[in-house]
Amino acid sequence: MNRVCLLIGALLMVVCQLGCSSTTQYVLTDAQSNIQVRHFRFTSDNVAFKSDAHWSVTQRVLKGGKQEGVRIITIDNGVLEIDIIPTRGMNVLEVRHKQHKGLRLGWNSPVKEVVHPAFIDLEGRGGLGWLDGFNELMVRCGLEFAGHPGLDKFTTNTGDSAEMELTLHGKVGNIPASRVEVIVDPSPPHRIRVRGVVYERMFYGPKLKLVAEISTTPGSDTFRIDDTITNQGPSDQEFQIIYHTNFGNPLLGKGAKILTPVKSITPMNAHASKGIDHYDTYAGPTNGFIEEVYLIEPHADKDGNTLAVLQNADGDRAASITWSTKQLPYLTIWKNTAAVDDGYVTGIEPGTGYPFNRRVERHYGRVPKLKPGAIRRFTLEFGLHVGQEAVAKKVAEVEAVAAGRKAEVIREAPAIPE
Amino acid sequence: MNRVCLLIGALLMVVCQLGCSSTTQYVLTDAQSNIQVRHFRFTSDNVAFKSDAHWSVTQRVLKGGKQEGVRIITIDNGVLEIDIIPTRGMNVLEVRHKQHKGLRLGWNSPVKEVVHPAFIDLEGRGGLGWLDGFNELMVRCGLEFAGHPGLDKFTTNTGDSAEMELTLHGKVGNIPASRVEVIVDPSPPHRIRVRGVVYERMFYGPKLKLVAEISTTPGSDTFRIDDTITNQGPSDQEFQIIYHTNFGNPLLGKGAKILTPVKSITPMNAHASKGIDHYDTYAGPTNGFIEEVYLIEPHADKDGNTLAVLQNADGDRAASITWSTKQLPYLTIWKNTAAVDDGYVTGIEPGTGYPFNRRVERHYGRVPKLKPGAIRRFTLEFGLHVGQEAVAKKVAEVEAVAAGRKAEVIREAPAIPE
Amino acid sequence: MNRVCLLIGALLMVVCQLGCSSTTQYVLTDAQSNIQVRHFRFTSDNVAFKSDAHWSVTQRVLKGGKQEGVRIITIDNGVLEIDIIPTRGMNVLEVRHKQHKGLRLGWNSPVKEVVHPAFIDLEGRGGLGWLDGFNELMVRCGLEFAGHPGLDKFTTNTGDSAEMELTLHGKVGNIPASRVEVIVDPSPPHRIRVRGVVYERMFYGPKLKLVAEISTTPGSDTFRIDDTITNQGPSDQEFQIIYHTNFGNPLLGKGAKILTPVKSITPMNAHASKGIDHYDTYAGPTNGFIEEVYLIEPHADKDGNTLAVLQNADGDRAASITWSTKQLPYLTIWKNTAAVDDGYVTGIEPGTGYPFNRRVERHYGRVPKLKPGAIRRFTLEFGLHVGQEAVAKKVAEVEAVAAGRKAEVIREAPAIPE
Repeated sequence: MNRVCLLIGALLMVVCQLGCSSTTQYVLTDAQSNIQVRHFRFTSDNVAFKSDAHWSVTQRVLKGGKQEGVRIITIDNGVLEIDIIPTRGMNVLEVRHKQHKGLRLGWNSPVKEVVHPAFIDLEGRGGLGWLDGFNELMVRCGLEFAGHPGLDKFTTNTGDSAEMELTLHGKVGNIPASRVEVIVDPSPPHRIRVRGVVYERMFYGPKLKLVAEISTTPGSDTFRIDDTITNQGPSDQEFQIIYHTNFGNPLLGKGAKILTPVKSITPMNAHASKGIDHYDTYAGPTNGFIEEVYLIEPHADKDGNTLAVLQNADGDRAASITWSTKQLPYLTIWKNTAAVDDGYVTGIEPGTGYPFNRRVERHYGRVPKLKPGAIRRFTLEFGLHVGQEAVAKKVAEVEAVAAGRKAEVIREAPAIPE
Repeated sequence: MNRVCLLIGALLMVVCQLGCSSTTQYVLTDAQSNIQVRHFRFTSDNVAFKSDAHWSVTQRVLKGGKQEGVRIITIDNGVLEIDIIPTRGMNVLEVRHKQHKGLRLGWNSPVKEVVHPAFIDLEGRGGLGWLDGFNELMVRCGLEFAGHPGLDKFTTNTGDSAEMELTLHGKVGNIPASRVEVIVDPSPPHRIRVRGVVYERMFYGPKLKLVAEISTTPGSDTFRIDDTITNQGPSDQEFQIIYHTNFGNPLLGKGAKILTPVKSITPMNAHASKGIDHYDTYAGPTNGFIEEVYLIEPHADKDGNTLAVLQNADGDRAASITWSTKQLPYLTIWKNTAAVDDGYVTGIEPGTGYPFNRRVERHYGRVPKLKPGAIRRFTLEFGLHVGQEAVAKKVAEVEAVAAGRKAEVIREAPAIPE
Repeated sequence: MNRVCLLIGALLMVVCQLGCSSTTQYVLTDAQSNIQVRHFRFTSDNVAFKSDAHWSVTQRVLKGGKQEGVRIITIDNGVLEIDIIPTRGMNVLEVRHKQHKGLRLGWNSPVKEVVHPAFIDLEGRGGLGWLDGFNELMVRCGLEFAGHPGLDKFTTNTGDSAEMELTLHGKVGNIPASRVEVIVDPSPPHRIRVRGVVYERMFYGPKLKLVAEISTTPGSDTFRIDDTITNQGPSDQEFQIIYHTNFGNPLLGKGAKILTPVKSITPMNAHASKGIDHYDTYAGPTNGFIEEVYLIEPHADKDGNTLAVLQNADGDRAASITWSTKQLPYLTIWKNTAAVDDGYVTGIEPGTGYPFNRRVERHYGRVPKLKPGAIRRFTLEFGLHVGQEAVAKKVAEVEAVAAGRKAEVIREAPAIPE
């Protein structure tokens, strides 16, 4: 980063927000004020307070191929490097462990570049164009619709019948953030926050605002997503969100296991039904493997919290996701242990529903509505755990939530309404 | 603007066009010569001649979100600030009155950014993708087709039957200008012109050239659109153009009125039929309001000129559009007095036809054809009128054109051919 | 080009590739290393070795309209100037003869700008959106599918039945190269190579890698395409490629002729059948001309090589394409002698098949498959021949390949399977 960029950063530094008199806040992007910083770097050396580890936040711009112009913001908290993509709806590309080379959260998609939304045609390939850019650790599906493509039939706010062709997993993962800011808390634990605002809005359509915050603290092996979705329209608005979180090598492998306190589990289709007794263990890369999807209602603890843990075969490395079933009552497990070159991956996907077409989700009562001005919050904590002991502790948490309660195994896939 | 840009501007200044030896002309964009000026500013201080008011023409580039890279040219004539979007087909974004804060021509769409065409998928949402970028004061619908989406069936130049899915309001509003120039007339009244060339052309498709000029004179409270459409193809070519001009706050409000010398008025559908007796008055923002569209053939004066006036409830602020019915025989009034957050707006839309699907328009004989090389001109004058007297004068003009002639009110919507 | 660019060029110069210790290689684009050089110029003055002619390789970036941001690389070998478009899949835009002003390979499409893929919607107009950007001398059709739009029905690798709407001529011609390099051989004849890597890959889709090389030697009147297509997926992968090479003025004109050693010729439809006896001669520009397409299996010489020659009416100018029928067994001749403003053009299109929808091509056994990791090479040599003698020599080559073998003329178009 050159001096000009540092200077721009300095000029943009805003001290003294309303009510938080010493927060350090940098605005990297703001469409309303016509701000777009190209390069940005801010480190623990640039602040007055001391923290447990050296940390930095860096923005760079990708070049070449379909990634031309895509911005990546990396939070380095001293332990984890977290890559965030403001150009693609604040998705999280990958998280790397700095002390353990090769240990990361993420996967190897056949899509190698971070594809700029200008190159994505969601309508392509019968509504599957989303797959042209799919390679993130965590991509939000939503906000107006989040599931499978195909015709949705519904009743509008004015009482009319309407039809709309939906596209796979919705639009929000391919909308560039209109505002991006970096905030570092002045008080311990000095949380480092990258916050983006993504609008999914149109005339005669939804007016949904997503404020997406990815944050961590210096020296931590976890990071957090704090999202709010606001209905800025004047009428009730359906919405859906699925946190499509994807893991491949090195955590996923033959013998890896997914652990979550299952209240009920249902196969998404007849094919998945055949594998349901082994839903929690993974095969190695298998060419021709056909995806198996399981629909889970998890148990929660007394506060409504639950978690899912993906542990490797040796049980000495694991990823965890912790969230509230009050916010996200459903969990989809997507097993896609295909060949490495096809994308050997599993999805652990807490959501407001399952990834059926919205028509199906609505039928089953899993499409929430937001009243005008209403806000919904979603908090998910992601961890990367190293060592038998740390992993065992996380697994024990799953068992503690289950508290001996049994899983109901439903062997037949849900009926699909006409 | 820095010196380099001034220098580039100076280098591009072309004195001595054919036949107008002292016109001041700057080329801001020219694809053929590979010219693209980023920042541009030119003011009354930069010319030798004196005019009635200080004026300027400025280009800036928008940043952030979906507006990244969009160019805006603002003509400030001392009284009005006129924002033009070369990146979006030379649409007019907004016009602000400098002396009366808050007085403007334009509206508050739920689409807040000026969306770059690379983020627009016209085919999206069953052909409604155009709505993802709709927020301008004036957007041209056209040129190959201008109305509702859906299947058109037609006969090609070679006599074959053909079918094509049309998309809402056509392509021209989302095509970046290939050439943009700023011209200031050296002789009084020193008209300031921003002229753009937009091509809607493809192989096995139309070869239509739009030269779109937005101009005004120093100190004036009006501005003018002078467009020419040329068929650069070797065969007869259908075309359509609708000047989709949209008004919201502050002119539109409960009790605002639209005045135009109606020769005949027809509701676009059964729903609009119910409101036809009040077609000329507006309700305040009404959540759940379903759009009402009226199809008008206006009377014209002996020269073929007509006008429409939108006056506010108090009758002390008004907008006017004046045009020739020889050029644009039809007028569509779009009443969409929905909730503010849904886009409280009315459209006053002179056109070569109405916004039915081209199939319907063709059936009713409202799709003109251009012979090879043929040119059609369209001139519209827009005014912003302040004070009871100025408004009353404009309303009197409407009455003068009507000259006591009665309006034929047709209460049934047109039949839609199969 | 300024000093900074020269410096960047110098920094990127990589001497000593594996096994070719003195190759001069510049990387202009590399998505993996996040390299994107904006301006580039490298000439015979910058190398130690002497060659037969002054030569240069230059990259520039287009501006304005729909070509904003498109990169053009021009190889000037002293005799030919060859324009290559890395932003559009390494297509070849035009080739100009430096000594004969106006002599070129290429055509005048109604599409005048080199359209950036971000402005192309392949799904548009019922799958004909490709035509919005079609103006190149040579555009590759492919790689997953290469022919007409419409529904394809097929069996997936996992044995399921599937359907997919294809778009005209596939995606590869509208994908920006992920890596671009310029290589000049240190040993005579000092071949100058522009090599690009274009990926057509997606999740749940093909993983095809195209390495596209356009090269020539100093002082030559020919240039060469050396392509390799690799299946980077783990399963057998269908692919198609057609080298859609297009010629207009000045070679094409009334009385121009196409010469190729025809083994069999079939009209693509009933309309083309009517003109089959004159398939090899061209009419002048004819408004309303309906395209005629002929499907040819060419004879080859003992090494499998064949060629096609397009000579002008006077027989003193010609273009030739030489290739191997082992690589590209089929040749499509597309006669589109329409009006000049519609695009007066003929296509000479060696391919792995014909441009029917893939469904039809598969039915006739013309859709090859690549095994995992398998590579297919394609080499085509293009020449521009000046003078009666040079043209006659090329025509004699066609006759030598035919070696008196007769052409089988099939007068009925192939049956189209349901």
